[in-house]
Amino acid sequence: MGTLDRAEHDRPRATLASVAALAQVSPQTVSNVLNAPHLVRADTTARVREAIDELGYRPLAAARQMRTRRSRIIGLRLEPLRDGINGVVLDRFLHALTEEAQSGGYRVMLFTAHDDADEIAQYGELLVTTSIDGFVLTGTHHDDPRTTWLTERAVPFVAFGRPWSDDPRAARGHSWVDVDGASGTRAATEHLLAEGHRRVGYLGWPAGKGVADDRRRGWREAVDQHLGDLRAAADAWEIRSEDGVAAGISGARALLGRPNPPTALVCASDSLAIGAAAAGGGLTVIGFDDTPAAAAMGISSVAQPLVEAARNCFALLHERLDAPDGAPPPTAQRLLAPDLVLRAGTPPA
Amino acid sequence: MGTLDRAEHDRPRATLASVAALAQVSPQTVSNVLNAPHLVRADTTARVREAIDELGYRPLAAARQMRTRRSRIIGLRLEPLRDGINGVVLDRFLHALTEEAQSGGYRVMLFTAHDDADEIAQYGELLVTTSIDGFVLTGTHHDDPRTTWLTERAVPFVAFGRPWSDDPRAARGHSWVDVDGASGTRAATEHLLAEGHRRVGYLGWPAGKGVADDRRRGWREAVDQHLGDLRAAADAWEIRSEDGVAAGISGARALLGRPNPPTALVCASDSLAIGAAAAGGGLTVIGFDDTPAAAAMGISSVAQPLVEAARNCFALLHERLDAPDGAPPPTAQRLLAPDLVLRAGTPPA
Repeated sequence: MGTLDRAEHDRPRATLASVAALAQVSPQTVSNVLNAPHLVRADTTARVREAIDELGYRPLAAARQMRTRRSRIIGLRLEPLRDGINGVVLDRFLHALTEEAQSGGYRVMLFTAHDDADEIAQYGELLVTTSIDGFVLTGTHHDDPRTTWLTERAVPFVAFGRPWSDDPRAARGHSWVDVDGASGTRAATEHLLAEGHRRVGYLGWPAGKGVADDRRRGWREAVDQHLGDLRAAADAWEIRSEDGVAAGISGARALLGRPNPPTALVCASDSLAIGAAAAGGGLTVIGFDDTPAAAAMGISSVAQPLVEAARNCFALLHERLDAPDGAPPPTAQRLLAPDLVLRAGTPPA
Repeated sequence: MGTLDRAEHDRPRATLASVAALAQVSPQTVSNVLNAPHLVRADTTARVREAIDELGYRPLAAARQMRTRRSRIIGLRLEPLRDGINGVVLDRFLHALTEEAQSGGYRVMLFTAHDDADEIAQYGELLVTTSIDGFVLTGTHHDDPRTTWLTERAVPFVAFGRPWSDDPRAARGHSWVDVDGASGTRAATEHLLAEGHRRVGYLGWPAGKGVADDRRRGWREAVDQHLGDLRAAADAWEIRSEDGVAAGISGARALLGRPNPPTALVCASDSLAIGAAAAGGGLTVIGFDDTPAAAAMGISSVAQPLVEAARNCFALLHERLDAPDGAPPPTAQRLLAPDLVLRAGTPPA
């Protein structure tokens, strides 16, 4: 133990509350200075920084010490309610995670955030005020500042979602669980080809986002592999647009208006698939996410294994929480295969 | 302060952990003895009871003292995922409650439970181990043991849902917020009558449950009020069954097979309405709960004001938490009116 540590032991340990008292601000403001400085006025920030220096407050050590006390609470950001058909996916995941955590002696605490920066501010707040043990992240994306922030501070977490990075080191830098979307759309495409369809098209989301490109890839690889000379024509069987039933209707109608149009469509979502089925061209469609709306309309869909995903997220987080302090934290990555749920194409009677 | 209290001050305060240590069981087992004795073997229960007596442990006082420390955590049971079309209602409520609580400086902690008894066991566990401040209940029903348990122990809570009791004192015994389902089905029925329909029927759930009877009542009162001599015929325009799209299809077809069948149907749920719309008789239908599935199919629906409900639940719970100890806790009841969301009857293009 170094001299700095000894000197600190000779006086009472500084806390968020003592810093707040000295700076004459609320504990929330101290937390904001540390975690969301853009929310705090410059003169207030300066006063809090002085108090932190004077008291020798070390927020990360405080957070870490709190963590060793084990609150047995896991934090999860509740994503904004998009109120769309596919919102059910994260709700199913939340149910499964709550059940799984509870069986393992943990509880799930919810919070909301406007964006990544706000979510990071909430992490700091929750670590300091509620001594939360770790986080489960959803909605991961390329260059995600949340995983960087948590990794740098050695806060235990697991992501439901890949890092979507081209750098293999980044992809293995922390624990994550994800569903192999490409294998789902590939299975859907191969099912339609096996049923006798030749011109199997695709309704998807705009290029550039990880999930969008991943789901499209499964369709394209299956078409390229199985269609021989016809595969060059597949470029004309594809439309990428925003999500929604209306987009599904207009996308399907645009494809049907082309020469030699597709007779079947694999879709990136059930919203697009429901629209395509209602477009009036007699298309066979397969959606994605196995939502109640698709089930009600008898539409086939790719189902994510969300109970299995939640189980794996909790297992990996638990492993990380039980790792000895000081040792390099264990990381693991698990990619789960989705299932194809086949339906008759008409509402169930 | 009495002599008992003085005597207790002369020795260290007994805790769940010290009782557990003396009885050589886990803290969970002590909690089970207190809150879910049916889960614990008789000899273990006896040993824990002896340790409680020997140490003078007072679990309710301990829980109450913890509560005055204010964890600023609200507990909410996540209902089992029914994976039906209507599950979205409680998910929207959960989102709104989490946002609302967070704005007020509180967090929502989730738990799951198999039934009322298990939910009560979880209350005890959460009060003792996590010092939760209060609860929001959903899924209330007649003779609900949960509200009795919480009221007897003076644990702050608010119910999203009426007590469904015929006894007006019971209905006013605690704070609750609910949505006036009858006013929703009445507005739906009156809209169909104003559109020129005369034979407006009803697809609902079996009699005897509060929500089922409430929603049916709005339809029946509107028919009785507006249809004059024709209202006697309305008995033949009604079928009550379990929920689901298939039940909606078969219910609508059964009604269509009768003499002078209804031309429009008010339904207790969107699942029933989606089925009725797909039944093939050209019926005009209005569902209940304004789900994404109904929106995707262009079906009109009664929408519960869930953000307003969450806001009221948090406000009433907050009022209760801020009430001075010893005073009779404030109670209030709020019945909110739903909105009718009108759609064209076909998927939006």
